[in-house]
Amino acid sequence: MKTAFILFDRMTSMDFVGIFDPLTRLKTMGFLPDFDWAICSFAAEITDDRGLRFIPDTVAASLSNYDLLVVPGGIGTRGLQFNEGFVAWLRTAEPVKLKVSVCTGALLLGAAGFLDGREATTHPLALDELRPYCRHVVARRIVDEGDIITAAGVTASIDLGLHLVERLAGPKARISIAGQMDYPYKEPERQGTVAVR
Amino acid sequence: MKTAFILFDRMTSMDFVGIFDPLTRLKTMGFLPDFDWAICSFAAEITDDRGLRFIPDTVAASLSNYDLLVVPGGIGTRGLQFNEGFVAWLRTAEPVKLKVSVCTGALLLGAAGFLDGREATTHPLALDELRPYCRHVVARRIVDEGDIITAAGVTASIDLGLHLVERLAGPKARISIAGQMDYPYKEPERQGTVAVR
Repeated sequence: MKTAFILFDRMTSMDFVGIFDPLTRLKTMGFLPDFDWAICSFAAEITDDRGLRFIPDTVAASLSNYDLLVVPGGIGTRGLQFNEGFVAWLRTAEPVKLKVSVCTGALLLGAAGFLDGREATTHPLALDELRPYCRHVVARRIVDEGDIITAAGVTASIDLGLHLVERLAGPKARISIAGQMDYPYKEPERQGTVAVR
Repeated sequence: MKTAFILFDRMTSMDFVGIFDPLTRLKTMGFLPDFDWAICSFAAEITDDRGLRFIPDTVAASLSNYDLLVVPGGIGTRGLQFNEGFVAWLRTAEPVKLKVSVCTGALLLGAAGFLDGREATTHPLALDELRPYCRHVVARRIVDEGDIITAAGVTASIDLGLHLVERLAGPKARISIAGQMDYPYKEPERQGTVAVR
């Protein structure tokens, strides 16, 4: 199983790292030894919305051969959703069986057409911006539509990461990884969203 | 006010980004327009404990002119605490008036001598490793000694960041920044640790 973590200029790093940490522990803590990942971008160097700089593993390479796509948010999404080159690149992820977003990363999934007819969420202040891209927008921490999962703002990344850990490796893995992350919190509507589909 | 965020090989990125996000919002959301920062390392390129690569702003430059020092943890701390070159570099931060660590970053503050005679905390599984460096080790989310603050593991970075936001800019800034981060949680012992000194 291989995950593409999408990075882009003026993203919010917390949106990305909050899900990167729990997911990659599936491998480093031995729950899914074959869980692998790459840091994927459309540009050769990435600067986040606070000036933090990252070096990606792949640049403008096809996303079609991954099993999981992870798209963070940030102010950079507001331009990128209308950037034909970026959106065409993101559409190469169409065959990816599980696509997830954090915060306004949902706008990018939407611009790529991946939210057509779906229920989805995003940052509480961006719900109206998401409406054109999906059937129904809801203000929830995590909206799991099976092959598409969207999460609310910024720190919802951690809750989404733990939700995915549980879907992919079971409740014991979630408890163990949350423990190693020293994360004592549970999202408000956890009971309704964690059921494995 | 200028903050040095310390990065090093095999650090845990969540330890760093969880405090980087709320602190840097002090500037981007207008609470402290003069709040500035630099990404500081002892090596020219940083790779975290999952292979994520960062480009620092300064390399092996003196840390003496900052107002706030932020040290994350990660498995890389286990070797670095005994690395004379790295520890000598970290000691250039001695004049910095406020020094904070997340997770096993406390081992690095300790190796630099900054925890001598202090009460401190770290990741729940690393408490014994911290004992040689300080007067008293406690298992709390945040230990605020005034000019030194240590936090527990990984995601305690967010709670420490919001604690600092409140110390530096007041409770309204904390509420506003936590809201923008879509963070609905409060650390278990918040009442006892958030008092501004």
